[in-house]
Amino acid sequence: MSDVNLHQTLYDAMESARPVIGRGNVADYIPALTEVDPHAFGMALATVDGEVYGVGDWEQPFSIQSVSKLFTLALTLSHGPHGDELWKRVGREPSGNRFNSLVQLETEHGIPRNPFINAGAVVVTDRLHTLTGDAAGAVRGFLRTESGNRHLDTDARVAASEALHGHRNAALAHFLASYGNLENPVETVLDHYYAHCSIAASCRDLALAGGFLARHGLRSDGARLLPRSDAKRINAVLLTCGMYDAAGEFAYRVGLPGKSGVGGGILAVIPGRGTLCAWSPALDPAGNSLAAVHALDAFTTMTGWSVF
Amino acid sequence: MSDVNLHQTLYDAMESARPVIGRGNVADYIPALTEVDPHAFGMALATVDGEVYGVGDWEQPFSIQSVSKLFTLALTLSHGPHGDELWKRVGREPSGNRFNSLVQLETEHGIPRNPFINAGAVVVTDRLHTLTGDAAGAVRGFLRTESGNRHLDTDARVAASEALHGHRNAALAHFLASYGNLENPVETVLDHYYAHCSIAASCRDLALAGGFLARHGLRSDGARLLPRSDAKRINAVLLTCGMYDAAGEFAYRVGLPGKSGVGGGILAVIPGRGTLCAWSPALDPAGNSLAAVHALDAFTTMTGWSVF
Amino acid sequence: MSDVNLHQTLYDAMESARPVIGRGNVADYIPALTEVDPHAFGMALATVDGEVYGVGDWEQPFSIQSVSKLFTLALTLSHGPHGDELWKRVGREPSGNRFNSLVQLETEHGIPRNPFINAGAVVVTDRLHTLTGDAAGAVRGFLRTESGNRHLDTDARVAASEALHGHRNAALAHFLASYGNLENPVETVLDHYYAHCSIAASCRDLALAGGFLARHGLRSDGARLLPRSDAKRINAVLLTCGMYDAAGEFAYRVGLPGKSGVGGGILAVIPGRGTLCAWSPALDPAGNSLAAVHALDAFTTMTGWSVF
Amino acid sequence: MSDVNLHQTLYDAMESARPVIGRGNVADYIPALTEVDPHAFGMALATVDGEVYGVGDWEQPFSIQSVSKLFTLALTLSHGPHGDELWKRVGREPSGNRFNSLVQLETEHGIPRNPFINAGAVVVTDRLHTLTGDAAGAVRGFLRTESGNRHLDTDARVAASEALHGHRNAALAHFLASYGNLENPVETVLDHYYAHCSIAASCRDLALAGGFLARHGLRSDGARLLPRSDAKRINAVLLTCGMYDAAGEFAYRVGLPGKSGVGGGILAVIPGRGTLCAWSPALDPAGNSLAAVHALDAFTTMTGWSVF
Repeated sequence: MSDVNLHQTLYDAMESARPVIGRGNVADYIPALTEVDPHAFGMALATVDGEVYGVGDWEQPFSIQSVSKLFTLALTLSHGPHGDELWKRVGREPSGNRFNSLVQLETEHGIPRNPFINAGAVVVTDRLHTLTGDAAGAVRGFLRTESGNRHLDTDARVAASEALHGHRNAALAHFLASYGNLENPVETVLDHYYAHCSIAASCRDLALAGGFLARHGLRSDGARLLPRSDAKRINAVLLTCGMYDAAGEFAYRVGLPGKSGVGGGILAVIPGRGTLCAWSPALDPAGNSLAAVHALDAFTTMTGWSVF
Repeated sequence: MSDVNLHQTLYDAMESARPVIGRGNVADYIPALTEVDPHAFGMALATVDGEVYGVGDWEQPFSIQSVSKLFTLALTLSHGPHGDELWKRVGREPSGNRFNSLVQLETEHGIPRNPFINAGAVVVTDRLHTLTGDAAGAVRGFLRTESGNRHLDTDARVAASEALHGHRNAALAHFLASYGNLENPVETVLDHYYAHCSIAASCRDLALAGGFLARHGLRSDGARLLPRSDAKRINAVLLTCGMYDAAGEFAYRVGLPGKSGVGGGILAVIPGRGTLCAWSPALDPAGNSLAAVHALDAFTTMTGWSVF
Repeated sequence: MSDVNLHQTLYDAMESARPVIGRGNVADYIPALTEVDPHAFGMALATVDGEVYGVGDWEQPFSIQSVSKLFTLALTLSHGPHGDELWKRVGREPSGNRFNSLVQLETEHGIPRNPFINAGAVVVTDRLHTLTGDAAGAVRGFLRTESGNRHLDTDARVAASEALHGHRNAALAHFLASYGNLENPVETVLDHYYAHCSIAASCRDLALAGGFLARHGLRSDGARLLPRSDAKRINAVLLTCGMYDAAGEFAYRVGLPGKSGVGGGILAVIPGRGTLCAWSPALDPAGNSLAAVHALDAFTTMTGWSVF
Repeated sequence: MSDVNLHQTLYDAMESARPVIGRGNVADYIPALTEVDPHAFGMALATVDGEVYGVGDWEQPFSIQSVSKLFTLALTLSHGPHGDELWKRVGREPSGNRFNSLVQLETEHGIPRNPFINAGAVVVTDRLHTLTGDAAGAVRGFLRTESGNRHLDTDARVAASEALHGHRNAALAHFLASYGNLENPVETVLDHYYAHCSIAASCRDLALAGGFLARHGLRSDGARLLPRSDAKRINAVLLTCGMYDAAGEFAYRVGLPGKSGVGGGILAVIPGRGTLCAWSPALDPAGNSLAAVHALDAFTTMTGWSVF
């Protein structure tokens, strides 16, 4: 498929999604997230050979929220055996429950089901912080390098708002601590968790930064971030657990590993080909961007690019 | 990869699994299943171009149990819109619970989470029975045609044993009926459910019969069973839900859509390439054959064949 | 308090409840129950010295439903050590869940939390059937003798309707059987369960029949049905578990041990004084008669008769 | 029953419990609690007419822990309508779960099931703090006045230890806050919660302080703390919810309203007669003192004093 075609296909996917752009509800659990225009829409594709294509608001930064969890997991695993110790503290199974549920954590004795539900992502942040001394800084640094965007940063106002309204995450972190499943103080872990979730980045930035998953573990400069097997495995965890309680539905419709955030972004991986990032702020009841899912569905239908 | 290599790779995968063959426990929930030799092991590969390779006990029939659920789903969906009505009565999300859990059924008001947990498979059987008048016969007929094995049949002794010890499935079927989610009488649905689960087939039979999923919906004779998109979607549901409560782990280790049964069989799909079936009776705590998972893991590692 | 006063107090309690008579919803889970007049109301008091007082429709038979569970429990325990074996198969703790929940049964491995939730009552019926050979007949016989009403009987049409619409109870019984917690065949136990729940009796009949709990274990003829300690213990189980998921609320408002049924009846015990039965068919969301609870509340407030 | 008899009966109850004193496990969730002698045992009875009897270590102070929750509830309700507002924020039903479970809190949207599970007691503490400006001080003051023990105080070392190891309670408080069910800052509420749970008091102190529940709401000096109906209602909540997940069992065996603490104390009410307090540090699996339950059981069996 030629370059012209890829750009045109992105455009067609956006047009296909246009009728549903703005449908659903913008995340309202923190005030800072409610101010975004629900009609914004962007989509970008970064190919494994370094090309980037985009349509709509693809260069406009948005709050990446849980999309950051893909990067905390990858950076943690990039520390080899020290990273793999994570798997003693978090599982790899779909949760079958709402993303911030405490129920499952209790019935499974403080071991979160997977690294992408909130509890699991807090544990990953904790481990990354132990390994790097600065979990949020590690994520920011990686995103800056891979995207080439030196101005990419945490939105301090969003981070402060998350902390202020974060009683549920605080509950969850204290609960993990009560099971001995945190290495760092609750407050430290939450600060870094909020800081990486509150990074503002564009579809372009994220599509570029996620490229290592399409390149089987290689960074944009060709250096190896992860062994090939670990890149494959992260894709597996993304496919089974990356879309909150709609992972099955996303696999069924789109057929790609992906990670969504309540900011409305979704980063999806086409192994061996590239990474797609779609963004539109209004969410479906599961917490995934309605228009972004629609556009990714359309794109994979048009291209036939699916892992299945 | 040449034919010689494929046979050799199957052999190497079996050798890699040999140390764990017999580890775990043979299913004991019905007496008829306990009589099998825990050290049996077979593995077969059927390629999309019609070749079949096998090692070990690959031609020995075993109780396919839940592997049959893959076929009831596909045959139901092969009825077009009448089949698709199924999706109003069963979900597509991983369950996050033991495969025969009633809890989730209750909290979700009688709609099973997916077609592969027992409750979901009972609903699929019910729908297939409405569409065909003989759900178990439809599965048997399909397996015979695709495998070319005219003697493939239900093991009546196993089916009778399942019915006799099937209080939990009876509970589940009555529970579905209490929510109005069965079209046929409880007894009829259970009879057909036990009959298709109790089919005895070999790795060779199953690898051949599952070929339509690797051929994007085409049967062995080239006729279309399912639209391309439906074949892709069944693979997605297999990957997220096909391995009981270890779907995430199987995706992580093996990276292929697959369906397991407590008889020790696992049927896995390599889209565009072929279907693999491994069998060994001793199970891990999640109910999947320990040696079969190991062998499939080894095979995909050696070949690099994974969807990710 | 003189006899005249007691009758007047019953009347005043009924008048106090009058504004709420007919509020709520008549049970509709089986058709036969929906035909009752929602504005019916009756109330009776049987004192320990043999007097009976009544107001309203106190002599009109209604479907006693779960009130029968009080009698199956007492009759089972009247068999001494053979009855006490029941406590190995059913607990004595409040359920904290809807009365027909399967969830708790699953998490607690087939041991119902108490003898008054449906699952527990099925186990009690099973035990009583083993001990007597005719569980429903034992309940009917006891009620006839104690009430002096020879015509008291199972309403066969209601029993048939329960069986026909009883998928949920069938689910529950099969589930118990799957844990080995039934001694008799599922069908037998359910038949007797439906037969004793479908007994038609009046407030007068039930108030008289429950007298042994006010008389510390003595039947109306002075014969001992139960040791004093067992009568006290049944009262304790009634108070903590007798009102579905509103036992706490009933204890808070009324302060008496009691058992309700979805037919709208409530039988309450005033230890050492007498038994009260109130009936009105319309139920609150917990499944208890709204007007009957109101009238019992008014009566205990006026008399100061409460266990606390 | 004469005074001599009462003292003798207490003694006999202690002797009856002697074989099980020390059986079970001393609470170990905070280090400060583990230092107590597991063989300590005390028991006191305060009658409604002001007499106090005691045996064993009845004058030795111990950590009252959850027994304090009885007093926070009563003091809150003593504020009339401002206290009653509590019932919009906490239920009155038995929990059917472990005392510190978060599961139920989640499924019931932040409304704790009753005032005696940890979550409920945190809400009561919060309300009492709003009403008094010093929740822990209010409890201490009341206990001092009623017991006449001016030295009764919070054990600061225990309170500090609770705070240090209180991740689970912190989780719970943040969880309540996430549902908007706290009026004061999480830290403030927890400080007061730990402070009143860490009060050290003896069986004598507690038996005297609980007297208002036996006197239908009257304090030791005859002043009314609560309306008669509220005293009766607190007894009802104690009976259905006061003994963690063993309320049904305690009602069945002992037949009195009671509140236990993991310090090994149990305060029980005999309406119209008096209050009993038994203490022994080793706990049964439900978290109640094994020997104290045994002694209370023996005492009520010997005296026939039970509400049923």
